[in-house]
Order: sequence, then C-alpha cells, then structure tokens
Amino acid sequence: MKRIALVALALLAALVLVACGGAGPATPAASGLPADAAAVAQARGLTADDVYAAMKTYTPSGKLDPYIMIASGGQSGQVLVVGLPSMRILKVIGVFTPEPWQGYGFGGSGDAILAGGKVNGKEVLWGDTHHPSISETNGTYDGQFAFINDKANARLAVIDLRDFSTKQIIKNPNAINDHGGAFVTPNTEYVIEGPQYAAPLGWQYAPLDQYKEKYVGLVTLWKFDRLKGRVDPSQSFQIELPPYWQDLCDAGKGPSDGWFFCNSFNSELAVGGVELGQPPFEAGTTKNDTDYLHIFNWKKAAEVFQAGKAEKINGMAVIRLKTAIAEGLLYFSPEPKSPHGSDVTPGGEFIVVGGKLDPHVTIYSFDKIMAAIKAGELGKDQYGVPVIPLNQAMEAQVELGLGPLHTVFDDKGYAYTSLFLDSAVARWSLGGPYANKHPEKAWSLVQKLPVQYNIGHIAALEGDTATPGGQYVVALNKWSIDRFANIGPLLPQNFQLVDISKGGDQMKVLYDMPVGMAEPHYAQIIKAERLKPFEVYPEIGWNAETMSKDPNATLKQEDAKVVRTGNTVEIWMTVIRSHYVPEQVKVKKGDHVIWHLTSLERARDATHGFALSGYNINLSIEPGKTETIEFVADQAGTYSYFCTEFCSALHLEMLGYFLVEP
Amino acid sequence: MKRIALVALALLAALVLVACGGAGPATPAASGLPADAAAVAQARGLTADDVYAAMKTYTPSGKLDPYIMIASGGQSGQVLVVGLPSMRILKVIGVFTPEPWQGYGFGGSGDAILAGGKVNGKEVLWGDTHHPSISETNGTYDGQFAFINDKANARLAVIDLRDFSTKQIIKNPNAINDHGGAFVTPNTEYVIEGPQYAAPLGWQYAPLDQYKEKYVGLVTLWKFDRLKGRVDPSQSFQIELPPYWQDLCDAGKGPSDGWFFCNSFNSELAVGGVELGQPPFEAGTTKNDTDYLHIFNWKKAAEVFQAGKAEKINGMAVIRLKTAIAEGLLYFSPEPKSPHGSDVTPGGEFIVVGGKLDPHVTIYSFDKIMAAIKAGELGKDQYGVPVIPLNQAMEAQVELGLGPLHTVFDDKGYAYTSLFLDSAVARWSLGGPYANKHPEKAWSLVQKLPVQYNIGHIAALEGDTATPGGQYVVALNKWSIDRFANIGPLLPQNFQLVDISKGGDQMKVLYDMPVGMAEPHYAQIIKAERLKPFEVYPEIGWNAETMSKDPNATLKQEDAKVVRTGNTVEIWMTVIRSHYVPEQVKVKKGDHVIWHLTSLERARDATHGFALSGYNINLSIEPGKTETIEFVADQAGTYSYFCTEFCSALHLEMLGYFLVEP
Repeated sequence: MKRIALVALALLAALVLVACGGAGPATPAASGLPADAAAVAQARGLTADDVYAAMKTYTPSGKLDPYIMIASGGQSGQVLVVGLPSMRILKVIGVFTPEPWQGYGFGGSGDAILAGGKVNGKEVLWGDTHHPSISETNGTYDGQFAFINDKANARLAVIDLRDFSTKQIIKNPNAINDHGGAFVTPNTEYVIEGPQYAAPLGWQYAPLDQYKEKYVGLVTLWKFDRLKGRVDPSQSFQIELPPYWQDLCDAGKGPSDGWFFCNSFNSELAVGGVELGQPPFEAGTTKNDTDYLHIFNWKKAAEVFQAGKAEKINGMAVIRLKTAIAEGLLYFSPEPKSPHGSDVTPGGEFIVVGGKLDPHVTIYSFDKIMAAIKAGELGKDQYGVPVIPLNQAMEAQVELGLGPLHTVFDDKGYAYTSLFLDSAVARWSLGGPYANKHPEKAWSLVQKLPVQYNIGHIAALEGDTATPGGQYVVALNKWSIDRFANIGPLLPQNFQLVDISKGGDQMKVLYDMPVGMAEPHYAQIIKAERLKPFEVYPEIGWNAETMSKDPNATLKQEDAKVVRTGNTVEIWMTVIRSHYVPEQVKVKKGDHVIWHLTSLERARDATHGFALSGYNINLSIEPGKTETIEFVADQAGTYSYFCTEFCSALHLEMLGYFLVEP
Repeated sequence: MKRIALVALALLAALVLVACGGAGPATPAASGLPADAAAVAQARGLTADDVYAAMKTYTPSGKLDPYIMIASGGQSGQVLVVGLPSMRILKVIGVFTPEPWQGYGFGGSGDAILAGGKVNGKEVLWGDTHHPSISETNGTYDGQFAFINDKANARLAVIDLRDFSTKQIIKNPNAINDHGGAFVTPNTEYVIEGPQYAAPLGWQYAPLDQYKEKYVGLVTLWKFDRLKGRVDPSQSFQIELPPYWQDLCDAGKGPSDGWFFCNSFNSELAVGGVELGQPPFEAGTTKNDTDYLHIFNWKKAAEVFQAGKAEKINGMAVIRLKTAIAEGLLYFSPEPKSPHGSDVTPGGEFIVVGGKLDPHVTIYSFDKIMAAIKAGELGKDQYGVPVIPLNQAMEAQVELGLGPLHTVFDDKGYAYTSLFLDSAVARWSLGGPYANKHPEKAWSLVQKLPVQYNIGHIAALEGDTATPGGQYVVALNKWSIDRFANIGPLLPQNFQLVDISKGGDQMKVLYDMPVGMAEPHYAQIIKAERLKPFEVYPEIGWNAETMSKDPNATLKQEDAKVVRTGNTVEIWMTVIRSHYVPEQVKVKKGDHVIWHLTSLERARDATHGFALSGYNINLSIEPGKTETIEFVADQAGTYSYFCTEFCSALHLEMLGYFLVEP
C-alpha cells in the first residue's frame, strides 16, 4: 500500500512539475506565474498569447536592449533610434529638421550642417526621410555611420554613430527629389541615391509635352570618405537614365559585388492631368504590365568616371545615358506589375522584386543575368538600353498575395515580404543554396501573418546584410485605425514586433508600438554589440561637428573671459554643475556677440543646456562639448540665459543675466 | 489501499492547482504561465517581479490604454501624449517648435499660430515647455483643453484636445521668462503663468546694481474664453511682485477656491557674478533659511482689475505691488529651504511645499492662513508684503529625505513627493480629513521607493485634481545613465511607471520608458474616457485653426480649379486616394501663389500629406481638412508635389508637377 501510494505521489509530483512548466509555486517566473502576475493577467483579460508576447518584449528596468533599430522618420525629417525587443524610442536624431532638445539648429554647430541642405539658396528645414542605411564592411553592418535621404528635395545626410548625430547634409545638384536612397555598397565605397519623379537635369524648366525628350531619371553614387566621415562630392558621380521613375535600390554582394539593382515604374511616361481629361497618375503609371529592373555595373561606372568620360553639370560629374549604354554599365529586365522593392539575398545570388499590383514576387538570378549579358542577344527599350528578357533572367516567382512591397531575409533560409493590400507579412522559402536550411519546398509561401494595418516596409534583424539574424521582424504599418486610444484625426503609425524565431507557420505578433512623431518608411536593425558610441566626448573641448578638439575650448574655469574688440564681444564660458562662468554678460545694443561654451563635465549624462531668452538659441552641451554661437544684440534690455537640462538639485539656479545697454 | 491512493491523488490535484495559481497547464495566463512564456522568462532571466511588471504594463495588440498622460517636452518645445500603462508615445504635439510630420509650421495654418509667439518681432521657433495643465471643471479635468508655458520666452500655448493640436501661442508682453505655468483655476477661469528670473517690467534694460529697486517678479492671470478656445489678453491681468523668483503655483479648490499659491526663491536678491568674486547663483540664492510662499486672492484681484485699478504696461493690465498690498491680494509665509513646488491637497485644505535643501515637506493649512490674515497681526517683508509667521500657517512637517521637489496625491489618503537627491519616490500619509483613509499615523513617511535616477517632477493619475485616482504614479527622472543601450553622450530621460495600487510600503517600479526627444518637466494623467477627440474632422472643408468650416474649402473634385488674377495664381485643389486634382500646376516665375487643399476623405486614418519640393512646405491633411499655403514662385524650373503620408498602394503615384516657366 505504501509503495503504491509513494509511486502515485512521485507520479503526481512529476505532474506538478510538468503542469507548472518547471519547479514549485513560490519560485520566479520561469517556473510558474507569480501570484501578482496571475491576478493582473486575469484582471486585464490577458490571453496566453498576450502573456507570451509580454514576456518576449519586456526589458526589465535597467537591462539593455540587445538590438537597435534605426528607422527613417518620414516627413518628420528625422531618424528614430529604437531598442528591440522593448520597442522603446531611445532617440529621435535631428537630421533635416531643427530639434532644440538636442540643440540641433538653434544657434550651435547644427546650423552649418543644416545650411548644407539649402535648395536654390533657400532654407528647407524639413525633409522626407525614407531609407536609412548603416555603413557596411564586407556586406555586414560595421556600426560606424548611417545615411538617410530626403525624398522631397534630393538630399543626403550622414550620421556618425559615435554620438548618433548628423554631421553632413548635401544637396543633389541635379535632382529635386529622390526615393531610392540611401543604400550602400558592401564596403561603403559609395552611398547610392536613386531618383523618383523624372525632371529635366538640374530641375530646369521644360513643359510636360517635352517629357520624353527632356525629362530624365538619375542615380547618384556618392563617394564616402570613411576617414573624414563625409561624402566627397568631387569623387562622386551620377548616371543619367530614361525618365522612368527609379524607385528602390540594393547593392549586390558576394558574386554580385560591383553591381546594384533598382526597380522602377512609369515606363508609360505618364504625365498625369486628370483635370485635363487625362488618366490620373495612379492609372497612367500602372497601364503597362511590366516596367524595368535597372541593373548597374557600378565598378565599371567608377572606371568610366575616373577615365573622364562624365560631363560636369552643375559642378557634378554625370555619365550620360548614351555613354552608360556604350560602356555596358546599364541593363534592364522587365518586372511585373507596378514594381516596388529590389532586395538582394544574403549571399548575393538573387534579386527579389515585388509588384504592388501583382500577387507574386519575382526572383532574378544574378548568374542568369550575367549569362544573358554575355550571350549578348538582347533587345532594347525606347531609349536604347539593352533589355534582358524576363524568362532569361528569372529564377522563380512566388505567389504571396496582394500588394507585395519589400523583402528581407533571416538565417533560416526564409524571406519576408510586406503585403500592403493584404495587411500581412508573408514568410516564404528561398531556393538555391538556401533550400537545405528549411524543411519547406523551395520558392513557396510558408505563412501569411495578418498585421494591423497596411504594412509598408519591413525590417529584419540585419535582414538586408550578408549575415542576417533570426529573432524578429518589424512590420512598419502605415495605418493604425483602432489600435490605440483616440487622440484625434492624426493617428500614429503602428510598428509591430513579430517573433520569427520558430520556423514554419509559427510567426507571431508580439507588440504594437505607436509612432506618433514620424512616419518611418524603412528601418535597419543592428546588433547593439556592433556599436561603439562615446559615453562622454573624448576630451574637454570637443567639437561635435568636426569630431576633434575645438580651438575655442575653455579648459579651466579660471580661463573663462569676455573680450571686447571694437563692437565685437567674444565670450569664452565654462559650464559645470551648477553654474556658468561668467554669470553676468554686459554688451551694448548692436554689438556682435561670439560666445564659446565648454562643458567641464566628465560624468556620463551630466548634460547642460544653454537657452538665451528672446533669441532663437538653445544648445545641448554634453560632457566635454564645446559649442559656439554668434548673433547681434539688436534689442536693448535685460535677458537671462539658463540651463535647460535638469542637471542637479540647483539646476534652476544655473543662470546668468545678459544685459544689453541701450 | 485504493481509498488512501485516491485521497493522495485528490490532495495532489489540489496542490497542482495551488502550485499553478489556478487551473491546468494548457489554459491561458490567468491560470498558469503558458509554456512559451515560461521558456522565454527563463531564457531572458526575468524574475518574478519582472513578470509581474510585464503583465501590469502590457497592453495587448489592439487594446487601448485607459489613461493618457500629457507631458511637457521641455526644451523640445513640444508636448508628449503617452498612453498608460503601456507607456507608449501616441503623439508629440507641435507647440513652440515647427514639426513637419503633423504639418505644423511648414506653410499651413500652424504658421500663423507660431507667429503669435514672436519676441521683439523675432521668430523664436523653440520653447522650454514646463508645466502642462488640462482644463478643469469643478477642480476635475474636463478633457477639453491643455495649456503649456515656455519658460525661455514667457509664452503660453493653448492646445485643443478635440484634435490634440495647438491653437494659440501668446507672448507675455512684460516678462521674458516664466516657470510657474501653466496652472488653471478650478473652472479654468484663468490660466496662471508664474514668472522665474526677475527683470525690469517688459525686460527693459537696468543694471544689476539696481536689482532691488528696478527688477520685479510678475504673475499673469490669462483669462480663458472656453467658447472661443482662446486666451483673451484684454480680459487678462498681471500682478507685480518683489524680485524674488516665483517658481511653481497651484490653485486652491473647495474651501480655498479663489486663491492660489506659488513658492519662490532668491529672497536674497542674489545677482550672481562668480567671475567678479561674488558667490555664484547656486550659493547666493540659497543663503537664507527661508523664502516666501506667495498667497494670492485671485477673485479679489479680478475685482481690482475690473475696477480699473490696474495700470496698462505694454498694452497689458498690471496691478502694481503697492495696489496688491493695499487691496489685500497678496500675503507671504516663510518656506524652508530653497523651496520647490506648491501643491494643494485634493480637498483644498492644505498646501504642500518642498525644500530642495530641506529634508522635509512643509504643509500649510488654508484655514490657519485665513485665521492669521483675519487676526491681522502680520509682519512685513522688505517690500511691504504682509508675512504670516510660519508657525501660524503650518499644519505639519514631514521628514522625507533629500531634495523633495513636488507632490501629488491619490485616493487612499497618501501623498507622493519626488526626492531628487535621494532618487526616490516618497509615499507619505496625509492628516486632517484624509487620516481615516489609510492605516498609518497622519503626516508620516510610509515608503521610499528608489527610482533611476534623479527624479524631477512626479505625476499621478489625476493626482493634482479634486478627484485623484490610485493606480499609478510616474517618476519623471532626469538622468538615465546606465538604464538603456548606449547611443552616445546625449542620453534619454527615464520615465518610470510605479504601481501604487496597494497601500503601505508596497509601491513597485513596473517599467522604464526612455524619452529621447524631449526633457519633460511635469505631466498630467487623465482618464481616456474623459476625452472626446474627433476621429475625423466633422465635415469636409474643416479649418483646424479656426475649428470651423473654411470659406476656401473645395467640396467636390469637379470644383477644383486654378484661377489667375494678374500675377496671382490661386488654386483650389482636392485630395483623395490616390490623386490630387489638378495634377499639373503651371505658373510663371515671380507669380504669387495661393493654394487651397481640401481632403475629401471621410475614412478614419486616411491622412494625406502635401510636400512641395524645393520649398519649405509640408502639410498633413487629415480627413476633411482644408489647408492654405501662400508663396512666391521665385525660381523657374520643374518641381513636383507629392503625398508624404503613405495612404494607399498607389501612394507613390499620388503627385503632380509644379512647372515654373522662366
């Protein structure tokens, strides 16, 4: 009897363990839901899936996110830095739009950077950022720089990931808008800026009835000088294209290194005019069943540029279309229908193109493209560009659903494509060298996961590099409708974190993240361990624009001074908890004021601000930074300057008086 | 034998239930941790507390946050809208700083609102927002409006909570900075804007050696016209004060309705000048053991203003200090040491003041203040203001720890004070009518909860109203140091969600939320159910600035047109998925262009953008909205305008050409 009871006991004890998924009742989470949490889950109506999702996204107080997403901010003009899996915004980087919290564009060094983005001499203080790109070494993110384009004005910005701040904005001298930027070549030799809506070169005037002859497409290869951390326009060049609307691009890697690929639309040469009885753009540009995948040999293009075969237009080297054709830099292949996206597989073997009005993605083989070019029996488009027939270039097509836009990859041989019209993420299986990584048939749809709603781009963990990860994809949804509390007619976007760690049809939505300050288009996700940001600036007196010691640094409080020369007053000021030196600055009305501020702080997070009342001036002075402002004291009166970053218990007392004598 | 085995089985079955906190293994969260979640918790090293916190903060995909926090954005110049308990940012409202995602200040209606904030005729396109205030009815949030001040330039903004957008910015004509704003009276009769650093009236020039005679403090009572949704300067007035630095204010309610209270510092009249061998401000302003709590009778002040006893200075009515004293509007009472915060208990009986350099909060009794005023045996400060001795006004002092700043309340008779130097939230028990709500001794410290790090303000669920809730407080921490992945020398702030639902010493930190685009000072948290925002604008052709039908609305696509009058070209355009009408706009160089755009959309979230390449123009056109832009086409060429909000599968095709003939 005893023996049987003991066996029963042992069996049931085992059952307890199985039932609870681990050890006894009072132990932490891994072995059973704590009583507090059980009560909360019940009270809040959480399902088992919710609990799972909560666990998977939760980053405990003080623990660091292992992945960092760098997302465009769309028409906010900025770039968002988001931690994963917590989906928390760590920073909104000021890029094309001034942002005073970080002191960007309000009197300090950001002013000169923003001035680089003038259009026709006019300040354009916003941008439509689209596609961020992290610098790469051997096709893998190296965590040093990020690049982003401004679709609205054809501009490119360089962000230094040592301090996650913008260092350069450059205006494309020959285009007025772009879309397919920024994309880097595998060793960041070039940053590719594709165009969008065709225009005459340098956006000169030409009527629309001269569209076919005078309007052009244009792709720009910006040479990146990694040592200087700047794009070098003198070593950059452009390639003239037919006035199709080149859209998204991706660089080859591995076997396809040296090439890049852009999708395009409007081979119809539509010019709109619904008010004139013509088809609206949305109809006119989608009439044809195919447009052209653009296939570029950038290594040969660089040689052509170096050989002086480019024309200078508005100071920029342009390889004209006829030269590009003659030199064999440019090939086309048809792509169905209303194409979007051009994404190269991790090993560089294939290019995936979506078709907004086609239920398939089309997969092109780089080998087949090369073979067709070598065979040389190609047709031509209306501008004389050689065209590789689709059946000669295509490896496969996979039917996914409605509105396939953009594709990323994982480490399990799967691809993930956003389906805008289906509001879904499609997981599908790759073929070729990837076929043995997954159990499914090659080139087949594996799962369609509904997302909420209208997904645009999709981002995966290093999912556009040679070495993708396999934990998460993020659905960058454009509409949120009913997903968040109502705060009026302008709704946030909805980023959804999707767990892709299990194969087959086991993708799950884990989390909804509203984005209520930006409309990100694309994002890249990097392992945090690849980043090596400064904790504080390397030394006292650091100029964050030049990333070197500032000649106007004030290294000791005793060296602070005010010097008048004629009607110029120059101030060398120190900043440390909790006072400025000097605390009284007296000038006369009309004086020209040059003011250098140096933080003497070395403690992490000991940032000070500097606001000057009545002026459009606010600085963020992180530990060690030197900033310079310059203005005319054009109004007599009593003003104050004060610290805008809550630095200490006596932060409110950190101020000075700026007295302007009449 | 069988019987015993069955008993053992039954007992163990019960044990399983207890061990798992409910039913069997495969059921949802409330009854046991799902296997997926258990594995994740173990893999991610989550403790039982982490699991609890994750459950408590998680808002499942598609469920709505029940609470909305409206937080200042500090030197970003904006206001943040955050859902609780998920701590997700739902919107960053453009207030003092232009923000293109929401089309604020880039050619549309926001331009005129921002122009209201000019200082000395100069555009100041940022602000240092400090204290948001939701409109109240009977001392409880009514969810209609929010107000926020700009410390850097003494400005006030009005936000309409029907569309969560800014409607008015007004410049204080007699002050150059403020701090203690915005605070509303219990029925939003007035919005109180307290000052900060003293200056001559209208910030005229006066040297610092005339500080005592010429510098003043100044509090402003902005009359709010609820029907118009605007502050009415003609019905507003100011009260001149001694040049102490008035800081934070709060309005009385219930028995103390009609009064308001501001703390102050710098009764020392320090003027800084460390470079001249004088004590720095941080020392000079903290020399005295006490400063003055300012006690205002605003109902009487309104009568004095109505009776014409105010002087007009720069167009604004000012009750001079001598009048305020003579009319019995203003009293002082000492407050220890380096005071910060002035917070009225939910029932209006007490005022709580923190002292940054005093370990106590000091609680003043409104009844005792009234009795002392009635008794009339008061001293005077150096400017003649009657002073109520501290021992006559004080109800209690509670020792909390280092750096008490600001206090909010709950529904359980507790107060919560932020301790900056201790980096802690102090929960303490109220006395008087609150003493029977909690088991603790009245006026005693109950718990000190560490937070990370350096908490400034603190916000509780409706915790500064007559009807506070009891679920959460949010610690608005100023430093985050090591709490988030490193993204360079400028670190985010850290909002921590604290569970206060259980009494006694059971407060818990649930969540860390980085704030990487703003440095919020104060926040208010409202129940979402009190808000009644529009889902779409009420009708096609809505002007969001005037909140009424726009005379330039275009109600049907057929009515779209372009009309030239001399060198003015006026365009009436319609906007709907996925085209603009017209799609071709032709002007001549130098033409003056007036462009009206009306969204014909009625579907929620069907927002369009409108960017004009090469111009500083971007609009957000929510369903039903009409916007107008105006500019000179000063450069010939070919430009495009396009939709910046990803609206549909053919969003990229939503564009037009803007042709400027030479």
